[in-house]
Amino acid sequence: MSVRLDTKAPERYQELLNKYDTWMFDCDGVLWHGDRLIDGAVEVLHILRSQKKRVLFVTNNATKSRRNYKKKFDGLGIEAHVDEVFGSAYAAAVYLSSVLNFPMDKRVYVIGMSGLEDELRSEGISFIGGTDPADNTLSAPGEIPPDPSVGAVLVGLDTSINYTKLSRAFRYLHSNPECVFLATNDDSTFPSEKGLLPGAGAILAPLLTALGPNRPATAIGKPNSTMLDAIKAKHDFDPERTIMVGDRLNTDIKFGKAGGLATLLVLTGITSEENLTGPSPSTIVPDYVTASIGDLRAAVAS
Amino acid sequence: MSVRLDTKAPERYQELLNKYDTWMFDCDGVLWHGDRLIDGAVEVLHILRSQKKRVLFVTNNATKSRRNYKKKFDGLGIEAHVDEVFGSAYAAAVYLSSVLNFPMDKRVYVIGMSGLEDELRSEGISFIGGTDPADNTLSAPGEIPPDPSVGAVLVGLDTSINYTKLSRAFRYLHSNPECVFLATNDDSTFPSEKGLLPGAGAILAPLLTALGPNRPATAIGKPNSTMLDAIKAKHDFDPERTIMVGDRLNTDIKFGKAGGLATLLVLTGITSEENLTGPSPSTIVPDYVTASIGDLRAAVAS
Repeated sequence: MSVRLDTKAPERYQELLNKYDTWMFDCDGVLWHGDRLIDGAVEVLHILRSQKKRVLFVTNNATKSRRNYKKKFDGLGIEAHVDEVFGSAYAAAVYLSSVLNFPMDKRVYVIGMSGLEDELRSEGISFIGGTDPADNTLSAPGEIPPDPSVGAVLVGLDTSINYTKLSRAFRYLHSNPECVFLATNDDSTFPSEKGLLPGAGAILAPLLTALGPNRPATAIGKPNSTMLDAIKAKHDFDPERTIMVGDRLNTDIKFGKAGGLATLLVLTGITSEENLTGPSPSTIVPDYVTASIGDLRAAVAS
Repeated sequence: MSVRLDTKAPERYQELLNKYDTWMFDCDGVLWHGDRLIDGAVEVLHILRSQKKRVLFVTNNATKSRRNYKKKFDGLGIEAHVDEVFGSAYAAAVYLSSVLNFPMDKRVYVIGMSGLEDELRSEGISFIGGTDPADNTLSAPGEIPPDPSVGAVLVGLDTSINYTKLSRAFRYLHSNPECVFLATNDDSTFPSEKGLLPGAGAILAPLLTALGPNRPATAIGKPNSTMLDAIKAKHDFDPERTIMVGDRLNTDIKFGKAGGLATLLVLTGITSEENLTGPSPSTIVPDYVTASIGDLRAAVAS
C-alpha cells in the first residue's frame, strides 16, 4: 500500500524531507509538461537545495547531451547544474567508461544523434557511425568487413536511422560475440512535439530481430538498474536515504524500487488515480503518492 | 517419419509424379545456389512439364517483381512463366486485391522497393510511400496528419528504410484501428551477396515494437497460410494432389504441411541430415526427403 500524502497533513512532507538526502527527479510530467512548468516545481527544488539535499535529474532522453538538456532547465527558470543531469546518453557513456571499463583501443559503433556523440566524447570514448555522413545514406550498404576495433554497438533514438547503419551494427554484433550490445533506453515510443513517434526501443528492434534471442541488448535507461549503476559511478549516495520522484509506474517507480530507493509518484503526468485504485491496479506500488511536486511546498509552510 | 527416397529405388520417384499434379518449388537452395544451378534441376522441371504437371515457384523474395524475378530463371536457363512465379510481393498484392477485396478508394502506405510497387500496380492497388522521393529522406519527419484514405500499411524489405517512413506507417496504424497491417514476409535476415543482412522481419520490427502487442501484422510469405490463400486466389489446384518442394523446414515444409500439401525436403540447401536425425531433430517432419531435386530424374530412367 502506498502512503497517500495530502497538503492537509503538511507535517508528512517535512518527514519526507527529513528522511531522504538525495532526491532523484524524472523531468517531463514531474517538473514540466513540454514548455509549461508545473506549479511549485521551482520553489520545491529551491527548498530542497536550501536544506542541503542532493538533487539529480534522471531522464531517458538520449538525443540531447546534458549540456543541451540543461538549456531546457534554463529556459524554464529551473536551477540545474550539468553534473546533476543524468540523461540516458550520458548514462550509457558512463556505463561504458566506468562500469565496463571499455578499453581505450576499442571503438563504439553508434546509432544515434549528436547528443549521444557529445557524451561519449566527454567520457573519452572513441566512436564511429552516428552522424558521420558516410553512414547517413539511403543507398544500399557496400561491403561491411569485420572490424575487430569495434568493441561495442550503442543504439539510441536516431531520426536518421537507415539500412547502412542497421547493417553495419548487425554485422559487427553478428561476427563478433565479444562485441558489447547496448541501448540508451528501450522506450517503444516517444512523445514528440508532433505527436507520438517510434522511440529508441523501435530503433533497436531491427537488430534484436535480425540477431535473434541469443543476443539481447543491455538497455541503460529507466527502469533498468544499469542507469543506477551509472549514477553510482559518478555520485556517492546512500540508497536508503534516496527517493525517486516520477510520474510513470513502469519506468520511474519500477526503477526506484529495483534500486532499493524510496519512490514518490506524482499524478501530474501519465499515471492517474485510476491506475492505482481502479479495477485492475498496477502491480508496481510506489511508497508515496502525492498530487503534484508542488505539494512539497507544504513542508516549509507547516 | 519421413519417407526417404533414394535413386536406388527409382520407382518411388515415379510414384511421386503419379500422385501429385501441382508442384510448388522454393528456389534458392532447391533449384539454384546464388548463381549456380543445382545439378538436374532443369531436366526435372522439363520432366514435370512433359507430364503436364503444374509448376509454381513460391519464394519469400519481396524486393523483386515476378517480371524481375523471371530474369533470374532466364539467366540460369530455367523455363518459367511470369504467372508461375509467386514472390511474397506479388502474393501481398493478390492478398489485398483478392482475399481482402481492398477498396478501390483506399491507398496502401508502402515500406518497400520498386518490385513491391510493380506488383501492387499489376493488381490495380493505389499506394503512396515506397520509392517516392518525398519519403526517402534522412531529415526528421514533419507533421504527419491522419489520412483516412490510407487503408493499409504494407512492409517489405526496404534498403532505403528511414525514420520518416517508419513514423508515417506508425501514425497511420496508430491513429486508425481499421488500417490493415501487412508484411510481405517476416524473415529476420536475408542472405545478400555481401553476406547476411537484416531482412523484412527486421524492417517490420520497429513498427511492431512501437505499436505494441495488440497490433500484430499479418505476414504473407512462407510459412504463413496467407501465401497459400493468395496462390488459391489465382490458381485452381487440389491440395491433396499438390506437393511443396523446399530446403527449409521452418518455412517451406511448415508452409506445405500447414496448407495440407504433401512436402518434399531436399538436402541441397539449409537443412542437413543432422537436422532430421541428430540428437535434437526438428519437430517439423517432411513427408518425403531426397538428397537433391536432381534425383527425380530417376523417375523417367526407371
